[in-house]
Amino acid sequence: MKREAEVTGARFERAAIIGVGLIGGSFALALKAAKACGQVVGVGRGRANLDAAVALGAIDVAESDVAQAARGADLVLVATPVAQFARVFQALAPVLSPAALVIDAGSTKRDVIATARANLGARIAQFVPAHPIAGAEHSGVAAAKADLFRGKRVVLAPLPENTAESVVRATAAWRACGARVAQMAPEEHDAVFAAVSHLPHLLAFALVHELAQRPNSAQLFSYAAGGFRDFTRIASSHPEMWRDICVANRDEMLVELARYGAQLESIRALLAAGDAAGLEDVFARARAARNRWLDGEYDF
Amino acid sequence: MKREAEVTGARFERAAIIGVGLIGGSFALALKAAKACGQVVGVGRGRANLDAAVALGAIDVAESDVAQAARGADLVLVATPVAQFARVFQALAPVLSPAALVIDAGSTKRDVIATARANLGARIAQFVPAHPIAGAEHSGVAAAKADLFRGKRVVLAPLPENTAESVVRATAAWRACGARVAQMAPEEHDAVFAAVSHLPHLLAFALVHELAQRPNSAQLFSYAAGGFRDFTRIASSHPEMWRDICVANRDEMLVELARYGAQLESIRALLAAGDAAGLEDVFARARAARNRWLDGEYDF
Repeated sequence: MKREAEVTGARFERAAIIGVGLIGGSFALALKAAKACGQVVGVGRGRANLDAAVALGAIDVAESDVAQAARGADLVLVATPVAQFARVFQALAPVLSPAALVIDAGSTKRDVIATARANLGARIAQFVPAHPIAGAEHSGVAAAKADLFRGKRVVLAPLPENTAESVVRATAAWRACGARVAQMAPEEHDAVFAAVSHLPHLLAFALVHELAQRPNSAQLFSYAAGGFRDFTRIASSHPEMWRDICVANRDEMLVELARYGAQLESIRALLAAGDAAGLEDVFARARAARNRWLDGEYDF
Repeated sequence: MKREAEVTGARFERAAIIGVGLIGGSFALALKAAKACGQVVGVGRGRANLDAAVALGAIDVAESDVAQAARGADLVLVATPVAQFARVFQALAPVLSPAALVIDAGSTKRDVIATARANLGARIAQFVPAHPIAGAEHSGVAAAKADLFRGKRVVLAPLPENTAESVVRATAAWRACGARVAQMAPEEHDAVFAAVSHLPHLLAFALVHELAQRPNSAQLFSYAAGGFRDFTRIASSHPEMWRDICVANRDEMLVELARYGAQLESIRALLAAGDAAGLEDVFARARAARNRWLDGEYDF
């Protein structure tokens, strides 16, 4: 395990995890498993949650104050809901050591970067934005696990102000968790994830909400089966987190909704016309594309 | 195992499986496991598939001719694609024994019943329509398993012509497979499944097809993760089967698409207005409804 930390180059003496939930807790467990860090200090909203994090071995010390936790840390992960980032960055700015690396785990990047610029002040060059493509519909540290990021993508969206060394250190931290690290511009990141993540969440929430409002919703749900369960799994995601993502990535999501609406309209027209061959063609193309994806044709 | 067959009352001497794929093969394996039938004769399109069915123990005898298979059978399961039902019923009508029970496994019921009426002639009273709520995105007898229907719903949509005894026998056959059997009117069946099954399939096909057509589709797919995988699992379903379902249940699916479109438009309006509280409310209601469903609140 020592060897892995050396290979990846990640070694931190004191990590501060701001927001010890599924992501923050898993990150801490992964760093510890890789022997890539010494002490871990965790900040969270609830005492019970922090006690659970200590019991799980994710954090060594529970702290209620962001500034207190970050003082002396050489790595700070901001993993609270994005709506709290401004307050967290404000607390960090005056206490960050010049050698400290700050990373985040927000699902959107343009808004997080704007918030960091507005609140980190002279420390902005120390912040290397990141989005780990991992998670689950379950939240909270109880769902955390050391291998949550293993084999998963982490997208870094570096700032022009970042030094090469800070990007290398951020890459090493995520690699120590087992992640495959890529880089994208923030705009590109937000557009890509609006299409492959944010839109599907909206579509799943919409379906369940629509059915739940009907007078015969109990009957409908009673006949829903495995296909429905998987299609709507992401509709069990955290409402507050998805509210924040929608607000942050509104423009790209509106673009995606419009594209999807046009696609749905063209399928509706095929259906209304009873165009069996046209429908089969759409379904066959979709299945073929998905199967290529499952076969790893788009991996890199 | 003998005891189970006695409890459920299902006992057939010779079963003919017309269409030995996932559903037909699993039904045959389940009946055999329950010792609820003697010989099983299977009819299928491909010799290789039928040989595989014999090797798996799903069928005892492979037959290429529907009439030949059905002659002397006291149970006939029609499990071909629905588009072939007319031809199958035509072949069955002249050779069915007066004591034979005919059941099907079609995902839609109004069209199947109309097809049966048009082609089974005087034998219509022997046909008890059914829809087993089980399946997978995989097809073919290789995916068949004896417990596919265990604990799953089967909806019977009996005809006015059915005798009480024939409905009891059909119920017993599906119960022997481990299924929970319910009854619905054909119109109600088609409306319910348009909402909880057919619409989600259309939505998943539409998303994958839309993304696959873009110039940057390779990049988009390369960042798709677990949420996308589950949301789109049903887009790997069989194009021919879903073409037939769309054509058969077109009117109900158009109704469902319109309802969903209205829901999506109301969410789009919240998004465009930046109504964070409104979005969170929709997401929270959807999550709560789905979680009640997962908790079994709508089971019966």
